Amino acid sequence: MLLVMRQNATQEEIDAVIGNIEAAGFTARPIPGGHRMAIGILHNKGPVDPARFLGLPGVKELIPVTRPYKLVSREFKSTTTVVRMGDVAIGEGRPVLMAGPCAIESLEQALTIAKHVKAAGAEMFRGGAFKPRTSPYSFQGLGEEGLKIMARVREETGLKIVTEAMDHEVFDLVEEYADMIQIGTRNMQNFSLLRRAGQSKKPVMLKRGMSATIDEWLMAAEYILERGNEQVVLCERGIRTFAKHSRNTLDLSAVCVVRKESHLPIITDPSHAGGHRCQVGPLARASASTGVDGLMIEVHHDPATAMSDGGQSLYPEQFNILARQIFEIHDLVSKQGEI
Amino acid sequence: MLLVMRQNATQEEIDAVIGNIEAAGFTARPIPGGHRMAIGILHNKGPVDPARFLGLPGVKELIPVTRPYKLVSREFKSTTTVVRMGDVAIGEGRPVLMAGPCAIESLEQALTIAKHVKAAGAEMFRGGAFKPRTSPYSFQGLGEEGLKIMARVREETGLKIVTEAMDHEVFDLVEEYADMIQIGTRNMQNFSLLRRAGQSKKPVMLKRGMSATIDEWLMAAEYILERGNEQVVLCERGIRTFAKHSRNTLDLSAVCVVRKESHLPIITDPSHAGGHRCQVGPLARASASTGVDGLMIEVHHDPATAMSDGGQSLYPEQFNILARQIFEIHDLVSKQGEI
Amino acid sequence: MLLVMRQNATQEEIDAVIGNIEAAGFTARPIPGGHRMAIGILHNKGPVDPARFLGLPGVKELIPVTRPYKLVSREFKSTTTVVRMGDVAIGEGRPVLMAGPCAIESLEQALTIAKHVKAAGAEMFRGGAFKPRTSPYSFQGLGEEGLKIMARVREETGLKIVTEAMDHEVFDLVEEYADMIQIGTRNMQNFSLLRRAGQSKKPVMLKRGMSATIDEWLMAAEYILERGNEQVVLCERGIRTFAKHSRNTLDLSAVCVVRKESHLPIITDPSHAGGHRCQVGPLARASASTGVDGLMIEVHHDPATAMSDGGQSLYPEQFNILARQIFEIHDLVSKQGEI
Amino acid sequence: MLLVMRQNATQEEIDAVIGNIEAAGFTARPIPGGHRMAIGILHNKGPVDPARFLGLPGVKELIPVTRPYKLVSREFKSTTTVVRMGDVAIGEGRPVLMAGPCAIESLEQALTIAKHVKAAGAEMFRGGAFKPRTSPYSFQGLGEEGLKIMARVREETGLKIVTEAMDHEVFDLVEEYADMIQIGTRNMQNFSLLRRAGQSKKPVMLKRGMSATIDEWLMAAEYILERGNEQVVLCERGIRTFAKHSRNTLDLSAVCVVRKESHLPIITDPSHAGGHRCQVGPLARASASTGVDGLMIEVHHDPATAMSDGGQSLYPEQFNILARQIFEIHDLVSKQGEI
Repeated sequence: MLLVMRQNATQEEIDAVIGNIEAAGFTARPIPGGHRMAIGILHNKGPVDPARFLGLPGVKELIPVTRPYKLVSREFKSTTTVVRMGDVAIGEGRPVLMAGPCAIESLEQALTIAKHVKAAGAEMFRGGAFKPRTSPYSFQGLGEEGLKIMARVREETGLKIVTEAMDHEVFDLVEEYADMIQIGTRNMQNFSLLRRAGQSKKPVMLKRGMSATIDEWLMAAEYILERGNEQVVLCERGIRTFAKHSRNTLDLSAVCVVRKESHLPIITDPSHAGGHRCQVGPLARASASTGVDGLMIEVHHDPATAMSDGGQSLYPEQFNILARQIFEIHDLVSKQGEI
Repeated sequence: MLLVMRQNATQEEIDAVIGNIEAAGFTARPIPGGHRMAIGILHNKGPVDPARFLGLPGVKELIPVTRPYKLVSREFKSTTTVVRMGDVAIGEGRPVLMAGPCAIESLEQALTIAKHVKAAGAEMFRGGAFKPRTSPYSFQGLGEEGLKIMARVREETGLKIVTEAMDHEVFDLVEEYADMIQIGTRNMQNFSLLRRAGQSKKPVMLKRGMSATIDEWLMAAEYILERGNEQVVLCERGIRTFAKHSRNTLDLSAVCVVRKESHLPIITDPSHAGGHRCQVGPLARASASTGVDGLMIEVHHDPATAMSDGGQSLYPEQFNILARQIFEIHDLVSKQGEI
Repeated sequence: MLLVMRQNATQEEIDAVIGNIEAAGFTARPIPGGHRMAIGILHNKGPVDPARFLGLPGVKELIPVTRPYKLVSREFKSTTTVVRMGDVAIGEGRPVLMAGPCAIESLEQALTIAKHVKAAGAEMFRGGAFKPRTSPYSFQGLGEEGLKIMARVREETGLKIVTEAMDHEVFDLVEEYADMIQIGTRNMQNFSLLRRAGQSKKPVMLKRGMSATIDEWLMAAEYILERGNEQVVLCERGIRTFAKHSRNTLDLSAVCVVRKESHLPIITDPSHAGGHRCQVGPLARASASTGVDGLMIEVHHDPATAMSDGGQSLYPEQFNILARQIFEIHDLVSKQGEI
Repeated sequence: MLLVMRQNATQEEIDAVIGNIEAAGFTARPIPGGHRMAIGILHNKGPVDPARFLGLPGVKELIPVTRPYKLVSREFKSTTTVVRMGDVAIGEGRPVLMAGPCAIESLEQALTIAKHVKAAGAEMFRGGAFKPRTSPYSFQGLGEEGLKIMARVREETGLKIVTEAMDHEVFDLVEEYADMIQIGTRNMQNFSLLRRAGQSKKPVMLKRGMSATIDEWLMAAEYILERGNEQVVLCERGIRTFAKHSRNTLDLSAVCVVRKESHLPIITDPSHAGGHRCQVGPLARASASTGVDGLMIEVHHDPATAMSDGGQSLYPEQFNILARQIFEIHDLVSKQGEI
């Protein structure tokens, strides 16, 4: 439920309405807008009786939020959220490239790749320190050692760091080292982890669950915002379908739909969507041409010996060309206007 | 099974091998290449004994075709097939735009739209005369009257005509009027209709079934080529998934995979994939950036009164901008090289 | 749109209403019920103005049929349709077993299997004479020769015959020989073939398309009923999902939903759903316990040499046990009442 | 990798082989069989060189385990695991019924339902104390209060208790109160929680992820066994497909496949699969007829006022009839033998 105040409502009126909402057992969340104040009424399990608030001084109208999500919706906040990490801004137009290996293997490997991708235009360095693996017998990542390597990479290159946190314990560690914390596709509905992310001061990247509807995805983001962290970036990474020629099916319609429904920035991960090197370039360009706010792409200087997902990693020289194409497609589309 | 002749094999040797294959109950299909002759061995139900042919003079090797398709495969023919209709060529690089209304409603409607899309750069005019409809109570198209209108449109604008044939009876009619005959998604495994298409002298556009794997799709094309018609264009139009925010999920990975597997040109239909106007532009640009050979896009000058699928039709002015973006993205990618 | 007449409406009033409907460009379809006459208003492309008919003498009410289907719906006809072929009745309670090989290979093969399955309790013999095959190079069936063999089987065993018709030409032939004509999963939306089936005097079995929603399936049946053939049996045969351990995923929820929505009898095909012999028994018993009106099961006395789908065919002795289990589960459930 | 010792291998030989495996950096896991000793070689990230162990005294052969899972496989342990809680045994034949409300609401509610389901033949009481909810604004369960109520229910009725643990913190609590701990569908690949479950002394029920393949599901169970807890029950609860007439599509083929691949007992949850009351009975009987080791069914004495999922809860009197049908179908099938 969204309560909209009149343009000329006074601060006293606003405070009184908030007090009234809280007295009724709800949580009031003021959202200052350009012209007027709106107040989100949260934690209402059932339908709220509008009559209860409509008569209060300064109240203009109540918008019943039929979508199950609230804080993440564009109805709630009409301007796109910009997630900032120093001079990196996700959501301001030009797509932010996040590139790096699937897993951090050594300082040398990480630095080699990081320098390449920075030179090609990447602003963030991605890499796995703690890896969620289908098999308990697969390489599980270097752990904290991997995080320390990433921190060194940031020091030496200036690239911002993004990496995944799989549980509470790891979250505390990752929060210490990373600039943006990734919640993976298998944890999209790990509500306990989402709440922990909601208490963080660091930006969070929330990947779509591999069979999640857009509503479920936005509701998962709602868990994070509801705890107070509004720095959330959504990441489309392909959905599970009957098709087996790609690891997943990249759902580019989701980009347009999320942009209409939510103010949160959205990026894609063409590497995990395609799962084969030859699909990464086309899917990355395709993402750029839908106007995404960023792309996460796996790059490895020696994919044949990569400890994880080498087959979907681009060679550095491929990434050079691709990065240029992505920026040029973005410029071309933003100049002529999206349709 | 593909039999490869030595580079210096004589015509007599080739003829002898063909005779031998046919004597064994198979069909031999010679495929002249740049450097050597290859011979497809068709209609072999089980595994062919290689010893049978390997000893013949001039034979270099037998390639067991593990893929179930043969004539459509790039192994069989390495250069991309170009489908030509007069001066329109699908498969030569620059994407061919096919645009028009979902259903032909009147000459005036058809001409109005056709002139718009031609001015914007379309080379072909699409429109439904016989419509496959989920409900027997929905508008089924103008029938032959619709075909006559399309023929008039061609006369007046020079645009080539593409429209769907749903059964044998309609096929005969459509073949008479159209430049390219569309086999729709619901008929992708209508094997009887595919065989009919294989006997046509006109190019055929084969849409992917809504839950077809790439193997099934290429096997459907194989039915057409096997009967002698090699002018086939494949059309990706979205697959059925759990996602409900779009009509279907456009599977752009399929474009790369089909290009590797088959020599047939491939286009996409972003209008039927998305099913909502706002998704058509992004999906069309996304298709262009994967290097498709063409796009089929619904355009209507007055979508609100369209008799079919108005909600996914672009306005003419939207198509103008989109067409320009498609060509520019194509130029950009082809100049820098696909990755 | 369903128009319901008052209980005491006279024949003159009914005739006048029908005339009025037809004059307005619709098709009127009278459906006599126990207590009153209802009249289906067909071919109304858009919303019908209720005022137009509500004022007519004898008219009680207009029920806007929000479901897209009409003639197949239980709202339209509340009692389950019984499809009869001689003394075989599908829809009367006890499940009708249809068993036989995937493909008819020879008279000896067909008769051997037919005698087995009859002894085990089957009432119908299934078998393919014209086979829809993904590959043009696979065995396509014996054709009319296969139909003749099936007719001989009927003569010698008394089993009714069901087999597939893939196109118009084949339909004419099959109609001549078979007791029930099967429309396969790939032809569920071959609207031209559905219309042909609607003109037949023979019962039709309509398999669900492999990615068809229940609405689309019932609309396909509507095409048949709309042309005058009400003897339609629906067959659930598994849907395409991401799961690859079975050929398809048998959707048993569809059985309950179809029973609520439609008066048409429904059977399942556990052989094509599972695709592996070991899954057929469990899926068949599972179907029986949901109260299906019949089951179609592949049986082969020598599956190792079967020309098609041997791996999913039961051995005759397995079918013996399974048939007994199916009948006993049916008795058990019908005695205690379905929940 | 499974290393099989000769029948006459001595204990010294076995110990030497184990020492050798561990020295090579792997974990050796001896599995005594009826006739011979087998030794699982765990934590081998890549292919193991067979030559390394094949030459050792007493070694018969190395079975390359192509399936990614080991400890959960029937190759590893051929007899079905029986999970015991006091006199309740899951995996011994007769299906164990677990019934109760979706969410624990009060002691009175829980006791009322528990007495009903016990009288009908249930051996376990299910209910949610901590609820994973798509929305942060939905009822999240009574928490520890709910667990205390369940403990009281056990005291008064003797029913064993099963309830879900969503994270580490809740796991500690649930472990204290419950007889079996449920890992929900959204947490199937919460590897950190799986490892915690592997350290528990209590049996664990692992629900299939809503889009998990059987391999991924068994690999998730492998995480639990690998940490030492072998008391795992698998629960099929429906998969996400394009079909929308049921909440999920119950995948009964998975039951047969899991039984062949794994020694772990398997149950189904027809309530969450169907999601509508009318589908629960048919899907429950269908499950019974495939020979499942148990069923989890939601029952509520007053579904209209239930705080969660009332629409899929059976009335107690429905559960009475259904329980009887389940046991009779089980008896019937086990008497005649599964096919």
